[in-house]
Amino acid sequence: MTPEEFRALGHRLVDWVADYRSGVADRPVMARVEPGEVRGMLPSTPPEGPEGFEGVFADLDRILLPGLSHWQHPSFFGYFPANSGLASVLGDYLSTGLGVLGLSWQSSPAVTELEEVVVDWFRQMVGLSGAWTGVIQDTASTGSLVALLCARERSTGFGLTRGGLQAEEAPLIVYTSAQSHSSVEKAALLAGFGRDNVRTLRHDSAYAMDPDALEAAIVRDLAEGRKPCAVVATVGTTASTAIDPVTAIARVAEARGIWLHVDAAMAGSAMILPECRWMWDGIEGADSVLINAHKWLGAAFDCSLHYVRDPEHLIRVMATNPSFLQSAQDGRVKNLRDWGIPLGRRFRALKLWALIRAEGVEALRTRLRRDLANARWLADQVQATPPWRLLAPVPLQTLCVRHEPPGLDPDALDRHTLAWADRVNRSGLAYLTPATLEGRWMVRISIGAELTEAEHVAALWDLIRREADGPRLGGKT
Amino acid sequence: MTPEEFRALGHRLVDWVADYRSGVADRPVMARVEPGEVRGMLPSTPPEGPEGFEGVFADLDRILLPGLSHWQHPSFFGYFPANSGLASVLGDYLSTGLGVLGLSWQSSPAVTELEEVVVDWFRQMVGLSGAWTGVIQDTASTGSLVALLCARERSTGFGLTRGGLQAEEAPLIVYTSAQSHSSVEKAALLAGFGRDNVRTLRHDSAYAMDPDALEAAIVRDLAEGRKPCAVVATVGTTASTAIDPVTAIARVAEARGIWLHVDAAMAGSAMILPECRWMWDGIEGADSVLINAHKWLGAAFDCSLHYVRDPEHLIRVMATNPSFLQSAQDGRVKNLRDWGIPLGRRFRALKLWALIRAEGVEALRTRLRRDLANARWLADQVQATPPWRLLAPVPLQTLCVRHEPPGLDPDALDRHTLAWADRVNRSGLAYLTPATLEGRWMVRISIGAELTEAEHVAALWDLIRREADGPRLGGKT
Repeated sequence: MTPEEFRALGHRLVDWVADYRSGVADRPVMARVEPGEVRGMLPSTPPEGPEGFEGVFADLDRILLPGLSHWQHPSFFGYFPANSGLASVLGDYLSTGLGVLGLSWQSSPAVTELEEVVVDWFRQMVGLSGAWTGVIQDTASTGSLVALLCARERSTGFGLTRGGLQAEEAPLIVYTSAQSHSSVEKAALLAGFGRDNVRTLRHDSAYAMDPDALEAAIVRDLAEGRKPCAVVATVGTTASTAIDPVTAIARVAEARGIWLHVDAAMAGSAMILPECRWMWDGIEGADSVLINAHKWLGAAFDCSLHYVRDPEHLIRVMATNPSFLQSAQDGRVKNLRDWGIPLGRRFRALKLWALIRAEGVEALRTRLRRDLANARWLADQVQATPPWRLLAPVPLQTLCVRHEPPGLDPDALDRHTLAWADRVNRSGLAYLTPATLEGRWMVRISIGAELTEAEHVAALWDLIRREADGPRLGGKT
Repeated sequence: MTPEEFRALGHRLVDWVADYRSGVADRPVMARVEPGEVRGMLPSTPPEGPEGFEGVFADLDRILLPGLSHWQHPSFFGYFPANSGLASVLGDYLSTGLGVLGLSWQSSPAVTELEEVVVDWFRQMVGLSGAWTGVIQDTASTGSLVALLCARERSTGFGLTRGGLQAEEAPLIVYTSAQSHSSVEKAALLAGFGRDNVRTLRHDSAYAMDPDALEAAIVRDLAEGRKPCAVVATVGTTASTAIDPVTAIARVAEARGIWLHVDAAMAGSAMILPECRWMWDGIEGADSVLINAHKWLGAAFDCSLHYVRDPEHLIRVMATNPSFLQSAQDGRVKNLRDWGIPLGRRFRALKLWALIRAEGVEALRTRLRRDLANARWLADQVQATPPWRLLAPVPLQTLCVRHEPPGLDPDALDRHTLAWADRVNRSGLAYLTPATLEGRWMVRISIGAELTEAEHVAALWDLIRREADGPRLGGKT
């Protein structure tokens, strides 16, 4: 495709995206296709000759759009918000259009240096001290893995340069809570610790990790000859945005010499609000912290900010130095290849930089406060309206709700919960994610899509009351 | 930013990218900035108020462009090509504009199903049998890590569900060659094997792995009570595009029951040419293979195709199943979260789909054949022109060259090599990557940027002769 063809098609594409974003509220939020339906409409072999871009436009409307759940919809209340703000989208368009890679500093210096600048901007925005240095990773899952690898290597004195985890005598132990994200256990397993060496600590009635349980588990492991290595605390858990007590956990971690990684993937964005920073009090005692700017804040996916207190340690774990990547500037520059798993990197700083510059920090704060107020309003309605129940505190923008009509046993209540959530999702008018707490189903309502205003939350409240009171109450789904 | 603001700015941005791509040949290929220069021109604190997107446009031209090395330049001969074809760019623009995520099938079914379709298209294009199933990873580095994790878990019978690598009696061993990519050793170290358990096998004079050395190393490890686990072979090594003999290696791997991962990150694209498929003869005997569609082929970074013969095994290693990701369709659909490390995923299939549809497979073949012919022409010139020397076979599009004037001892020759390469790079007229072979510096010329025609290769040949014959011959750099 020539630049002139790109110019003409690019204009059409920008119009298409602008129209899509303008009209997204009119679409059913959740895709209504059956498994295999999209695949079945696409040819099973690639075209030998050129089709141009017309075919893409045609299939986009006809085949792909009906197969998408619309994360940018104002009535998307599922998972967590994944705002892809349009200023950030433009920043990402520049990145892809430039087509430059950051392997080493020299491979395109501005890729590295803009990332240094914007990651430090974000550090200031969330109130972390100057003792932190950051880098952009793809996701919090990768961030957890990188953190546990760093912890493993600190505990073993860089065992990876010798016999690896295979040569350790006492097994290394990782501590976390049942409310931590599934990627934490996955990271521990991938890093080689083994499930037997992951301790799932108990939590309190607000689903926050119990630091006394951490201390007790460490004491037990030490007594039995094992080697405590790392604890992963969460600020804003996925099920209920619970807040693990970072100060108390950091105190234990420091006293016991274990690595503390704080997964603030969701709540980290809220740290741009001074009134929310109590949630991670004690954060300066952590070794690493991860914040997903691609969630609530609005940077286009993927944009996870990973801060560490000891960048030299991270680099020693991750560094490679093949001849084809050496340059005269080494030693004076940051080589991003040594800060994570992939060698190649997109120019991801552009999308965060564009968002912050175009909107300004104050506008981002205002939007997040709007969402917090909407969540508080809905929490008040739920609490004032039996048999609705809030199942967890609402420190942020996510509610855990259940409609509990009298006379249902726990299994029937589970069926009822899944049934009304399914009716809501199938209505196309809103999208919610059911999840479990203490082994029983509830429904998460995660507010904070960029387009979600008070009116959409009010409409949701009407909708879920209607669907929960529906004809199939208590019946089989 | 509203959709209407996005529309107006997006048009300007598309024009900017079209102009950039049209005019890229007129820019110096390599950035001429000093460390810290870009950073020093940017404000050190984020803006409180909105600046709009104007500031981004202004700084882009004034600050960022001079700090970029231009990978899409027709005289970019560094590293490996990272073509970001404009049809693929448009596909990626759709992905970012839609802002949908693929966590599970249900989170946006078309994200998963288009990926299934296009990854299978690509399988057919490179001539892999129907026994392979693929997925898009970000990079080959991640692909190597995932492959070694799969190997580790096959050898330990899913030790990750028990005591992990820490509980193994006999150390697991990984085999590779000194010519394999640095990410292979990195992956082995991150996966916990330890450097003592990575065997660097000898290679032949063409820099290809010696399968007899593999067999001998395995026999020795077995005799000494260790457990051979995996071998990583490379089709198209980074230094010289050497071709490890896959058939012979696969025979050893099969006989010894170890995992064979084939890193075809670079050469994999060439497999769309039937005349090149001899390079990976025996590939059907591998367990996993990785091809970077974001290199020579032209898919916008990042787009690594990772094929496995036993997807159930990969899923068992990578799967998590928290309640908030369960859906009624589980069991009938592919949940991409279970095929790699990150949970969240961009709609990456769009950029590969758009490329293949817009260009057609035959046009991609024609472009790759052009590059092969250009490389053969330059190789002929080098071989016919002493004291120039080709240091390795040229099966693909990368040459390893040295200018060897008589009378220079090896250290002086190294200085001469680095000096003329540096003069070429600083000229701004072309970009080359020096690297070492057998401990001595040479210069890689990697042909295959989308815009590189025969005339650019001819101009490079003039340029390097001029710079190598320059006044500082043999002097200190």
